[in-house]
Amino acid sequence: MDAGASNGRLRRAPENFLTAEQIALVGKGRRDFLRSTFLAAAAGVAGAAALGRPAAAAEGDDAILKPQPWATSLGQPVAANPYGVPSKYERALARRQSPGLTQVAAASVSFAPLQGMFGIITPSGLHFERHHQGWYDIDPAKHRFMVNGARPEFVKTPKVYTLDDIMRLPPVSRMHFIECGANTGMEWGNVAVPTVQYSHGMLSCSEFTGVPLRTLLEDCGADLKAAKYVLAEGGDGSAMTRTIPIELVLSGEVMVAYGQNGEMLRPENGYPLRLVVPGVQGVSWVKWLRRVEVGDKPYATKDEAVHYIDLMPDGQHRQYTSIQECKSVITSPSGGQMLLDKGYFNVSGLAWSGRGKISRVDVSFDGGVNWVEATLQTPILSKCLTRFNVPWNWDGRPAVLQSRAMDETGFVQPSYGQLRAVRGTRSIYHNNAIQSWKVADSGEISNVQIL
Amino acid sequence: MDAGASNGRLRRAPENFLTAEQIALVGKGRRDFLRSTFLAAAAGVAGAAALGRPAAAAEGDDAILKPQPWATSLGQPVAANPYGVPSKYERALARRQSPGLTQVAAASVSFAPLQGMFGIITPSGLHFERHHQGWYDIDPAKHRFMVNGARPEFVKTPKVYTLDDIMRLPPVSRMHFIECGANTGMEWGNVAVPTVQYSHGMLSCSEFTGVPLRTLLEDCGADLKAAKYVLAEGGDGSAMTRTIPIELVLSGEVMVAYGQNGEMLRPENGYPLRLVVPGVQGVSWVKWLRRVEVGDKPYATKDEAVHYIDLMPDGQHRQYTSIQECKSVITSPSGGQMLLDKGYFNVSGLAWSGRGKISRVDVSFDGGVNWVEATLQTPILSKCLTRFNVPWNWDGRPAVLQSRAMDETGFVQPSYGQLRAVRGTRSIYHNNAIQSWKVADSGEISNVQIL
Repeated sequence: MDAGASNGRLRRAPENFLTAEQIALVGKGRRDFLRSTFLAAAAGVAGAAALGRPAAAAEGDDAILKPQPWATSLGQPVAANPYGVPSKYERALARRQSPGLTQVAAASVSFAPLQGMFGIITPSGLHFERHHQGWYDIDPAKHRFMVNGARPEFVKTPKVYTLDDIMRLPPVSRMHFIECGANTGMEWGNVAVPTVQYSHGMLSCSEFTGVPLRTLLEDCGADLKAAKYVLAEGGDGSAMTRTIPIELVLSGEVMVAYGQNGEMLRPENGYPLRLVVPGVQGVSWVKWLRRVEVGDKPYATKDEAVHYIDLMPDGQHRQYTSIQECKSVITSPSGGQMLLDKGYFNVSGLAWSGRGKISRVDVSFDGGVNWVEATLQTPILSKCLTRFNVPWNWDGRPAVLQSRAMDETGFVQPSYGQLRAVRGTRSIYHNNAIQSWKVADSGEISNVQIL
Repeated sequence: MDAGASNGRLRRAPENFLTAEQIALVGKGRRDFLRSTFLAAAAGVAGAAALGRPAAAAEGDDAILKPQPWATSLGQPVAANPYGVPSKYERALARRQSPGLTQVAAASVSFAPLQGMFGIITPSGLHFERHHQGWYDIDPAKHRFMVNGARPEFVKTPKVYTLDDIMRLPPVSRMHFIECGANTGMEWGNVAVPTVQYSHGMLSCSEFTGVPLRTLLEDCGADLKAAKYVLAEGGDGSAMTRTIPIELVLSGEVMVAYGQNGEMLRPENGYPLRLVVPGVQGVSWVKWLRRVEVGDKPYATKDEAVHYIDLMPDGQHRQYTSIQECKSVITSPSGGQMLLDKGYFNVSGLAWSGRGKISRVDVSFDGGVNWVEATLQTPILSKCLTRFNVPWNWDGRPAVLQSRAMDETGFVQPSYGQLRAVRGTRSIYHNNAIQSWKVADSGEISNVQIL
């Protein structure tokens, strides 16, 4: 089946890197792209009278008139899958690697399919991946977590914990987003990757469960007045180590987590232990966490002195950036999709801030000249994704869709012009600029940069 | 491996219906039971100094001193599983059928493993199942949803919708619990099922996404003043039909849902469309939803006139009960587990109400004589699970653990004595009594009924 073929009233956009098998499935299931490219003849909900068909006109429609196999036979038994899986018609909704982006598939990225997701929770099976040495399914009985001090006086009683020790302690559960610092990184170089999966898909959101790191430091008799930073160290072969300011630990927000969305962490996400550092870039959420050291200076590890740094216009490196500033993106309609007719569309997207709650999202359909306020889905939680929706009537002429988020500190997501005035154009990390999706008069949607 | 064998400091409780293979995995992974049966020597967090071991004493501990394979080799590549799965060490955490409970495995139940879950979100792979005719993976392109009136004047323009039609409309996403009306049903007959998975496991909680049913009724020109009830009809062979009071529809809460936890519904949970009726028993959340009819009388369908009714003490049947009243249960420690020593335990559980938000949960350790207030995890959402936690120091003597929830309407979860005074003992459905877990001086925990 031709990926660009017309399917009823929809012309499917060829999703990048779909296999022929996946494309065939999409053709069968249809909704992965239809989700955001509905043909609409009416304006708004009140005018959505063209939806559906009068029941009297449904003659000849097998699906409604004739008994389907699922109405005339015994279905599958309970617990056919003791751990359930998605429908076979949903296989195209998957995380995907960007071929060529990295040299080694074990030290690479897979992106979450934001264009086909709802609400704010990321199913753990679609959570983005970023590994530096590949992922491991570590035997939890063999995993240990150590707390020690850079100098003996920083931690009175260094200790080694089993997972059981950690899970005995009073737990907390909180919903937080995690975003890789390199998310939207290609855009610095004006490489407009085609779809939101690849431009913003290093972003996920889960309910995490664990023990505040502060509890563990206190258990070891850490000197929380002398401490200025902690070093978090992963158990994988990449020697992943990151400096965390002690203020984040003292706030109680930093968590040694074992749970994600009600069950244990997934192996790709650090099973059995990872650090959760709400609001901070993903690299600091150290996976397969094996050690935290209490110190009084930043550690200048390779992953903060050489990588995950920002090359500024004056040629200097900005280091130790960590908070993911206020950002948003329209996930639907978005790049690679196609509008087939004029009329009503629901425009939906995600907003988030590493500094707290989202307070407002504005959406523009004309590249930033006029803005309308979007509806925010509740609950609006701190350092968590917030879903926004806004209705739009497309008049069939070229348009540019943008979203601009504001957080409770008053920070407003910058345009590319504003961001580059400060940061230049040679960075990789920490791009939170306003994303633009251009709608051509043909209905084709593409990724463009508007200063 | 003997399921009752001692494993370090833990004596595992033999989980019901585990296969030998699962038991072996539990022995390897350990934490599924350890989660709530930690050996504790200290009281509370401040006194948890016996946790972990001094790092200096860790000599000979391979796990911390010697490089593990995952630190010295390249791991698995990204997208090795385009749709991720849990760790192989977590296979014992699964939904399970109760053998013998039903005659046909397709018309049966699988229970969610509440004893091993965290927070409030149920991973869709562990969501409980209750089917009347088995489950189906319906081709969404062939599925239709119809709205019509019991009399022509009730719905001006009856319509047939495709899934694409539904997904075009402005969506809402909300987190809600779903509980089968028969949850905890065996307890009416004094059959104390051994574990919380079987006593309370027909309970799950997800972020659902869909379109308010009210929007669709308005789209068809329904007469919402004449309407008193709607009938919801499923597409499976069980002819599942349920009456829903129009007030619930008018409130905007009732949703024709296609999304669950960020992705499409799972086949076992009604893919591609199910009704979401917040606060109401699960049977009304009709799966594989194919039709809603607007009427002015209750429909007295088989699943509300013959099943899902309450036999009262005077011999009459109570019909059309629907709201799941305020209820709670301690999930850990719970039946089948075993405390191996005195000291600190975190007591954790879930509370919910079909009438709104949970306002308070009290916990008793002596069978209801004394009560302490538990900490409620935020956010506390309406008609959603709320997680509670409370510390406990076990003195080694027999104890009875209970939780008692209160909702924002002031409704207090009843004791079995209070419930039976009104409802008698011959019901199956709508048991929201206070659950008691008896801790023997041996540390063994069992299900008992306290009036």
